[in-house]
Amino acid sequence: MSAELDPKRTVAELKELRGFTADENGAQRVAFTKKWVETRTWLRKKLHDLPVESHVDDAGNLWTTLPGQSDRALLIGGHMDSVPNGGWLDGCLNVLAGVEVLRRISIQYKGKPPVTVRLVDWADEEGARFGKSLFGSSACSGNLDMNEARGLKDKDGVRLPDALKEVGIDLERVKDSGKELRSAAAYLELHIEQGPVLLDLKLPLGAVLGTFGVERHAITFHGQAAHSGSTPMNRRKDAFLAAAKMSSEIYRIAERSNGGVCTIGSCTTKPGIVTSVVAECRITLDQRHLDAAALARMLKEAREASERFAREGSVTVSWERLWQIEPVLFNRDLVQMCADSINETCGKVHRLPSGPLHDAAEVARAGVPTVMMFVQSLHGISHNKIEDTKEEHLEMCVTAFDKLAERAMEWLMAKVKLQTP
Amino acid sequence: MSAELDPKRTVAELKELRGFTADENGAQRVAFTKKWVETRTWLRKKLHDLPVESHVDDAGNLWTTLPGQSDRALLIGGHMDSVPNGGWLDGCLNVLAGVEVLRRISIQYKGKPPVTVRLVDWADEEGARFGKSLFGSSACSGNLDMNEARGLKDKDGVRLPDALKEVGIDLERVKDSGKELRSAAAYLELHIEQGPVLLDLKLPLGAVLGTFGVERHAITFHGQAAHSGSTPMNRRKDAFLAAAKMSSEIYRIAERSNGGVCTIGSCTTKPGIVTSVVAECRITLDQRHLDAAALARMLKEAREASERFAREGSVTVSWERLWQIEPVLFNRDLVQMCADSINETCGKVHRLPSGPLHDAAEVARAGVPTVMMFVQSLHGISHNKIEDTKEEHLEMCVTAFDKLAERAMEWLMAKVKLQTP
Repeated sequence: MSAELDPKRTVAELKELRGFTADENGAQRVAFTKKWVETRTWLRKKLHDLPVESHVDDAGNLWTTLPGQSDRALLIGGHMDSVPNGGWLDGCLNVLAGVEVLRRISIQYKGKPPVTVRLVDWADEEGARFGKSLFGSSACSGNLDMNEARGLKDKDGVRLPDALKEVGIDLERVKDSGKELRSAAAYLELHIEQGPVLLDLKLPLGAVLGTFGVERHAITFHGQAAHSGSTPMNRRKDAFLAAAKMSSEIYRIAERSNGGVCTIGSCTTKPGIVTSVVAECRITLDQRHLDAAALARMLKEAREASERFAREGSVTVSWERLWQIEPVLFNRDLVQMCADSINETCGKVHRLPSGPLHDAAEVARAGVPTVMMFVQSLHGISHNKIEDTKEEHLEMCVTAFDKLAERAMEWLMAKVKLQTP
Repeated sequence: MSAELDPKRTVAELKELRGFTADENGAQRVAFTKKWVETRTWLRKKLHDLPVESHVDDAGNLWTTLPGQSDRALLIGGHMDSVPNGGWLDGCLNVLAGVEVLRRISIQYKGKPPVTVRLVDWADEEGARFGKSLFGSSACSGNLDMNEARGLKDKDGVRLPDALKEVGIDLERVKDSGKELRSAAAYLELHIEQGPVLLDLKLPLGAVLGTFGVERHAITFHGQAAHSGSTPMNRRKDAFLAAAKMSSEIYRIAERSNGGVCTIGSCTTKPGIVTSVVAECRITLDQRHLDAAALARMLKEAREASERFAREGSVTVSWERLWQIEPVLFNRDLVQMCADSINETCGKVHRLPSGPLHDAAEVARAGVPTVMMFVQSLHGISHNKIEDTKEEHLEMCVTAFDKLAERAMEWLMAKVKLQTP
């Protein structure tokens, strides 16, 4: 049935893409740059021979549509942009696997599949230049914070609205892209895992349950500077001592949470000199869980621990929320189809949450039934030139993803029939 | 006997000094500045009516000599310089109490005491401008590191040798000042405590046992950066986790050491972003003890703990020594005389080590029998405009210090007699 699918071609195209978009430091397809525009021109050429329509929406997302017998659309998404010095797979594997699936469907159904199939290349998933990820998909889902977006600047002081204007996008109209989702009936996204879970389990592929909710805070402990030589230990109000106790504590909190992760990513000290007890210590805490209640519990436990450590050390503590997002659960039927497709391809499957956010989360938040498939990431590392996946796993993921697309089409057709008595 | 001593005059002179050397931010008598030169001119005027000789040595130290029947000299020291925005007592209390003691001795012995008495105002004790404290006294003791001194620059890039030249000092000859110590038989220094020990004990005065030895190191833990969302807790190589464990550990090490103190004064993290596990964490550790063996044990325990924490967290650790100095023990006889003088003055005495370094440590290292007396510091704070001591305690310390000077003179006279059969 899917005899026309050629996963080796996807691997070859990924290498071709790397050939003209990477240098010795890695991939350089940063959104809205010249290289990114070149990348898209190349992508459109790859789609040229198919009976498809392509256009860029108001947010800069590139949509390629293979019209079907029904207007109800199966979406396949990814992003061609990379971080600076990025890997060769993050984002573009998704798109190029989608191209291969489109080819297979187009040939198998002689250019007219039962449902419409659309491939979307989201604009600026990485947010590398303006520090705001999921730009194109959050504009499309309607979740983009316009006030925040209007104020964003890159490191050279260029404002996001001006940078967008240069590539023909009017920031004030980006949410008009939302109309692209009107006919969307399901959304599928393939991605490398960017973590070591599948690697540790020695599994090539995983079905993704959803994306973690995130609570991100800065926690500042306020003590008192004092001379390192003349201040007895029991007289100190040591802000670092209290902050440091949080480090082991978040490991205990994560363990109790059954599936969550907690990270202290930075620590700064004031006055920060060798001869003074630390007067002020600021740490950042990033907490993630797939379950909203569990995430709230993790946050509560961290807050209580910080207050306990502050009391113990005669210091005070203050919290400042930096960011938060709710967990996004993917569609149960699609997760099952994803697991079945993986099982059929390689005989083993693992269900796992996604720690990083993805465009899929934005689409799911817009109410479209969504699922993601992960392929094993060597070294468990991404956003780096050493990012890699075994070629046999890359081929396997294209095959499994194609099976998922076929299952999803059948599922949508059944739905369409139910709705058309 | 000491009817002529007028401790209230010392307090009045301290206030007079504050009047023209402090602004709304505190004392501004930074060494080698115009204000410091003015301060010394004022000091020399205060000494004008006494039968003394004054000169500045090759290191910029100001010596005032009241010649006695013996050339053997009792030295009394202090420093008129302050840190920027400093307190009204640190350093100049020592000198002005010395002036009052000189007056009393001069009158009591009709200008010819049994031993020579010398008051020294050390140059640049604070090292505020070039980051190198005890400049004048370490030049005099011979311990100044000449290579280091030649390379020192202030924050404006002015080199120490050039700044010295402006005040008539040739850096290459500063150690010639060592000849001033040839006749030195004892050295006494009064100082505010700069810590809360006497305050907590509700005692006005303390006899100082010596100055702490110091081991100062930078400790760097090397882990691995990893995404905060996609990296399971048990797969992390978290440099901050290992470093943070040191914080509680140094309190345990200090407690076991019986009298030592340990301080982690700064912590930096790389990459130091909210979404990454910390790849590299550098902390500074300052350890102090009066006992050399105990100090060595504290260092060994800290090193072993850091290696244990590194192993536990699958990270590595490296140490870099920033600075060290041996403990300096003061003369036992003089410590006893200091304690007796305090007891006689206020009925209670406490013996304590000095956490901060003082010029006295340099004189002691040069082989001169030395002791210091501490007066209680309100708030336990120094190097700050809120630095303060109760006036009754200031008067008490001048009285006790004078008694100590008298005892020391008698002690020296006894020694002189023993040596002259």
